Amino acid sequence: MTSVGKNIPRVDAVAKVTGMAKYVDDHLVHGLLYARILRSSIANGLVTTLDISKAQRVPGVVAVVTPDDVPPHTFPTAGHPYHKDPAHQDVADRNLLTRRVRLVGDEIAAVVAIDALTAEKALALIDVEYEEYPPLLTAEAALKPAAGEIHIGTGNIVGRGSYEAGNMQAALAAADYRFEDSFATQSVAHCALENHSAYAYQDGAGRIVVVSSTQIPHICRRIIGQALGIPWGRIRVIKPYVGGGFGSKQDTVVEPLAAFLTTVVHGRPVKVELTREETFIASRVRHAIRFHLKTGVTESGTLTARELTAISLNGAYASHGQSIVNNCGAKYRQLYQQQAISYQGTTVYTNLPTAGAMRGYGVPQVMFALECHMTDIARELGLDPVEFRLKNIVPPGWQDPVSGIVVQSTGLRDCLLKGKELIQWDKKQATAKIVASNKRRGLGMACFTYASGTYPVALEIAGARIVMNEDGTVQLQVGATEIGQGSDTVFTQMAADTLGILPSMVHIISEQDTDVSPVDLGSYASRQTYVTGMAVRKAAEEMKAKVLDYTWGMTGIPAQSMDIVDGWLVVKPGGEKILPLADVALDAHTNPVHCQPFTAEVTNNARVNAFSYGATFVEVDVDLATGKVDILDIYNLHDAGRIINPQLAAGQVHGGMSMGLGYALYEQLLFDDKGRPLNANLLDYKLMTALDTPEFGIGFVEPYEPTGPYGNKSLGEPPAVSPAPAIRNAVLDATGIKFNELPLTPERLVTRFKAAGLI
Amino acid sequence: MTSVGKNIPRVDAVAKVTGMAKYVDDHLVHGLLYARILRSSIANGLVTTLDISKAQRVPGVVAVVTPDDVPPHTFPTAGHPYHKDPAHQDVADRNLLTRRVRLVGDEIAAVVAIDALTAEKALALIDVEYEEYPPLLTAEAALKPAAGEIHIGTGNIVGRGSYEAGNMQAALAAADYRFEDSFATQSVAHCALENHSAYAYQDGAGRIVVVSSTQIPHICRRIIGQALGIPWGRIRVIKPYVGGGFGSKQDTVVEPLAAFLTTVVHGRPVKVELTREETFIASRVRHAIRFHLKTGVTESGTLTARELTAISLNGAYASHGQSIVNNCGAKYRQLYQQQAISYQGTTVYTNLPTAGAMRGYGVPQVMFALECHMTDIARELGLDPVEFRLKNIVPPGWQDPVSGIVVQSTGLRDCLLKGKELIQWDKKQATAKIVASNKRRGLGMACFTYASGTYPVALEIAGARIVMNEDGTVQLQVGATEIGQGSDTVFTQMAADTLGILPSMVHIISEQDTDVSPVDLGSYASRQTYVTGMAVRKAAEEMKAKVLDYTWGMTGIPAQSMDIVDGWLVVKPGGEKILPLADVALDAHTNPVHCQPFTAEVTNNARVNAFSYGATFVEVDVDLATGKVDILDIYNLHDAGRIINPQLAAGQVHGGMSMGLGYALYEQLLFDDKGRPLNANLLDYKLMTALDTPEFGIGFVEPYEPTGPYGNKSLGEPPAVSPAPAIRNAVLDATGIKFNELPLTPERLVTRFKAAGLI
Repeated sequence: MTSVGKNIPRVDAVAKVTGMAKYVDDHLVHGLLYARILRSSIANGLVTTLDISKAQRVPGVVAVVTPDDVPPHTFPTAGHPYHKDPAHQDVADRNLLTRRVRLVGDEIAAVVAIDALTAEKALALIDVEYEEYPPLLTAEAALKPAAGEIHIGTGNIVGRGSYEAGNMQAALAAADYRFEDSFATQSVAHCALENHSAYAYQDGAGRIVVVSSTQIPHICRRIIGQALGIPWGRIRVIKPYVGGGFGSKQDTVVEPLAAFLTTVVHGRPVKVELTREETFIASRVRHAIRFHLKTGVTESGTLTARELTAISLNGAYASHGQSIVNNCGAKYRQLYQQQAISYQGTTVYTNLPTAGAMRGYGVPQVMFALECHMTDIARELGLDPVEFRLKNIVPPGWQDPVSGIVVQSTGLRDCLLKGKELIQWDKKQATAKIVASNKRRGLGMACFTYASGTYPVALEIAGARIVMNEDGTVQLQVGATEIGQGSDTVFTQMAADTLGILPSMVHIISEQDTDVSPVDLGSYASRQTYVTGMAVRKAAEEMKAKVLDYTWGMTGIPAQSMDIVDGWLVVKPGGEKILPLADVALDAHTNPVHCQPFTAEVTNNARVNAFSYGATFVEVDVDLATGKVDILDIYNLHDAGRIINPQLAAGQVHGGMSMGLGYALYEQLLFDDKGRPLNANLLDYKLMTALDTPEFGIGFVEPYEPTGPYGNKSLGEPPAVSPAPAIRNAVLDATGIKFNELPLTPERLVTRFKAAGLI
Repeated sequence: MTSVGKNIPRVDAVAKVTGMAKYVDDHLVHGLLYARILRSSIANGLVTTLDISKAQRVPGVVAVVTPDDVPPHTFPTAGHPYHKDPAHQDVADRNLLTRRVRLVGDEIAAVVAIDALTAEKALALIDVEYEEYPPLLTAEAALKPAAGEIHIGTGNIVGRGSYEAGNMQAALAAADYRFEDSFATQSVAHCALENHSAYAYQDGAGRIVVVSSTQIPHICRRIIGQALGIPWGRIRVIKPYVGGGFGSKQDTVVEPLAAFLTTVVHGRPVKVELTREETFIASRVRHAIRFHLKTGVTESGTLTARELTAISLNGAYASHGQSIVNNCGAKYRQLYQQQAISYQGTTVYTNLPTAGAMRGYGVPQVMFALECHMTDIARELGLDPVEFRLKNIVPPGWQDPVSGIVVQSTGLRDCLLKGKELIQWDKKQATAKIVASNKRRGLGMACFTYASGTYPVALEIAGARIVMNEDGTVQLQVGATEIGQGSDTVFTQMAADTLGILPSMVHIISEQDTDVSPVDLGSYASRQTYVTGMAVRKAAEEMKAKVLDYTWGMTGIPAQSMDIVDGWLVVKPGGEKILPLADVALDAHTNPVHCQPFTAEVTNNARVNAFSYGATFVEVDVDLATGKVDILDIYNLHDAGRIINPQLAAGQVHGGMSMGLGYALYEQLLFDDKGRPLNANLLDYKLMTALDTPEFGIGFVEPYEPTGPYGNKSLGEPPAVSPAPAIRNAVLDATGIKFNELPLTPERLVTRFKAAGLI
């Protein structure tokens, strides 16, 4: 291995710092039209009057489209692979435009004009009147028997899920202590650098081409087809560089409307892009979830039973819906072992922004509940929270009682030991908590586990194709998407290593085009290095076999006696050079008899999963008077299996920790009692800035994961999971106050400190 | 077969008539810079002074590049597949810019500016002085011992070629009569609708991307690499729609300079496009060739021996050079059989525009000589020219004595019989030639043969890849290029037929991109339906096999018992429907266990060739006083094997006949005695217009060619071959005057009619 495990620079570094990398907005399009969307100003109701006549008369307006013009059938938007079984399909509850408005920001009409300003002007001239219904903003409100239905026939339930493994009654009976508690997480926004943006046009054959900032081009194509009611092969989705997604672009927010609008204007290109303010309310947000946990423990601190119930607020449309809270149930199992475990989850419609996929997909929420609860139990039992966890974590070889998947590797024990050492856990435990009259110091920690992809819940396929040039360099085509996380770079390293060439000899095609890119489900579920990585490896192995076989024909040396190292054919095992790969590639392109340019294409249908583990250790100072929490020291420890590129991995962890800190301390979407957003912009929404960000400490332990293509497991989402409970536990350690609700804002802290008589 | 053989509309018809089809000029590029080229005003000499300082100071000028700035090594430009053997490589005799100017229009310097006008302005401010050498404008001048060398060490010879098959001495001795004559053809221009145009930029990885109106994207990439002296994999060539090429774009005219210039301006995009006037002198033209033929024939009209010598004027740079005149020798063999045949050809450098590939690649020239000569012999022997030919044409099963290739199918006999019938040959032969005092009527005909691709002279490979969507529709990717001839449509028909789906279910990717398109040599040598067609067939067969095997898994019906018909899986042989292909495709995209989206990719290394045949029959009126030749009736008869799309085939024949008529009667590039062009523009150069064009008669005979993928053979170039000799023979029939030189302009005719006392 010459490049896997090493810090090669990002393959797109130069393109991105020089501005050469092309995002949707960098595309120049002849005669591009701009669409703007008329959005509901009320959270729940019916449009009774919709007069577009003035808007239609604005010079420069090309079309004004209303709910009467769009296909009457509903469609789903979640970025999940399609399942033929209707029971496994996403909820189809949305039309392209609607008179039945379900949130402030719901989409009523669209204006297409020669520029965005003209479209805005026309938008303002549309007369709209509503019949208002009471906004349902909480689970309690939505589930009241008298509550109106946001979607008819649902009882305002998006879905329910549950399981029970083991004998719960016996397990609870076996416990010496039973602990119960409730926790609540808030709704936050993804705040990707690039807002949602797509443009669509029709080609000469009438096919619809959509250029989109999407994480999921192939799935996006299918959903557009469903939305418009046309065969999926009539659609082509192109994905240029993407300025971040964090799950919000694992959904189809603007693409179906863009695709529809181009058909209205005879195939002319139409762009639909959201402003930052629209992205807050009209794309997706993180689910606010309330949990109730019940845990049985023996005297000695061994877990016997665990029950989880969760109720998830989904907002106005299903999107990923019940999948998120089901993932809370599915991903909280692999951390600790107990005799019995159960889960019950419910997702509820409300008249708030639609919640969907967001980095962690329910796991930051459930781990907040679980890891606060674990520390609380340890405190009650007088156990060290780390020791308590070490006693109960699942060992390698443990089999998940629900999915049947076996944990092949876990470095959680090493993460915990390394974390203790890095933060000087034992030494600091012994020091005083009072560091100034109004200042308390505390230590906290929390664990997490996370899967690599979605198997066995959903399909996990990925494709890769490699084309070799005459000089032995290759193009690598994947359907998986670079959205800033660095996947293009790690795929390059993987292909280079397996082929035996330098990373500089691999040119990865970063732009996906569903017409020609190998089928892949896209960037989500921290699946790409794991699932697509295996596709890259298999394609490279296939190509290498072709090269060796061809070289056999050229040299008479049997394929099995040769290897490729640094772009040279060499004899095994000594490594004597035979001839450069470029000579083989040139011959394969030009030999009159044997000419056969090398290409290789594979699909990997994963049918495996692997669990990443890790923990956050944090030391905080809490200012009792101001409620300010200072992070003195924070470490994320990760077992993501073998690390492909440490520098990129560190970047992922930094980003995730930053997101986790914001989740812990600052971020929350706020609404008034009419469901109107109070902070749907970057001035009022408190996103972490560089000045808010402490130095991040990172540690990796690297057990080899046998199911991973290069011993690797997931790393994309995990870093965002454990900071919040770790910080909450540190605040508890510092102040003795249990905060069971996020975020730990100064207002919330000071209120509790006052009530507790601390100030 | 449901669509091969039928008239499906062009797949790009709507895109082209609506303007949606994107050519190079339709690409909008951020910050595009424009290059203009300083061209030599003399035909032969040396630039002694080149002062660019004033040009550099023009506001808006970004760079001025001179011969001192470009790589010092020479490179070839001909669009041939690369051969590792230097003896088979094209002549490398060109630099990107030169002080040693070899023709009026040679490339001395380039200005890159923010717009074309600024570049033009700066161009005019470059001071240039020359040392002039005598221009060498004829073979005689160039081959004089005292002549200076246009390229040092060449003796002004580009190349020589020869063969002799059979015992020539014995064969000549076996003849009762020996005929000798000389013929000369002129230089003409391609006049494609779209001039040469390309732009280039560097991507973030420093690779050079060239978007070009080229017939040969993969070969173009290699030549750019050679020109710049960089590995070929560092270059990416993209080919959008092309507005005609006719061989001029089977060459690299603007791409290497565009690629170089972007490196000079730090990767910014630079466009190099030729004006129409530049295209006449600075791209490529058809070789003017002089032939001498010697033929032995028995009393009864049986050919015994044939000798061909040819001298070809190549202009200032080698380009395709000797290959063209060698093709005269190679392609004149398969028409008639004789005991011995020989060829000697020489290509000579002159200080005129560079000759390169042009529709027919030497064959219109040699067939003019051969078919005039044949008719002259028939007249001398008192034989009917058709009967004389029928007596001597090669029969099916005939083996080429030089290449060893066997003629598997020939419909020439049927073409001749059908042609006679269509034009009422026997009846009209008997009618009076004098139709008015100054008007003579005559009948003429001429045959041709043409190969399908270049095997065994050069490599013949083609690739195809097919990707199936969830709805059973497919994308078809080929490296072969649509340049207006309709190849995208016939490939669509082929894929549809072999896959058993409707043509509307095939979406062909028309734009080639060397990063991902299967390797193909491009559009030339009438190879695509024959060589690439086989790749399409093989890829479709591979995909069909995958579909049938997958369906076996779904249904339990063995693959060999099923077929695909009109997008349905059916039972063989009865055809009972099992399930729609869309159901299979959807399952293959979504089945949790068996999921395997279908793709298929193949390379076809042809290693076969097949000969098309045909003839032109024409009736003309010649106005003795004005020298005007009126086409009363003209038919092209073609054996191109099985016709894939009769309407498109007819279009090809119409275009070729039009080109052949222009070649016969009007077109000729003219120069003064300094080598300066006299008619290098569309006002002075006499191109056929609609008003000059008679009704074209067409007939196909369709023997099944066993080596063709669908029984088909070449049709792209052949239609342009035989009109000129047929018209010349008709003028001879009408007037008794033998015109052995093209074109048959009024001036030339009247001069000869006067000399002969006809007027």
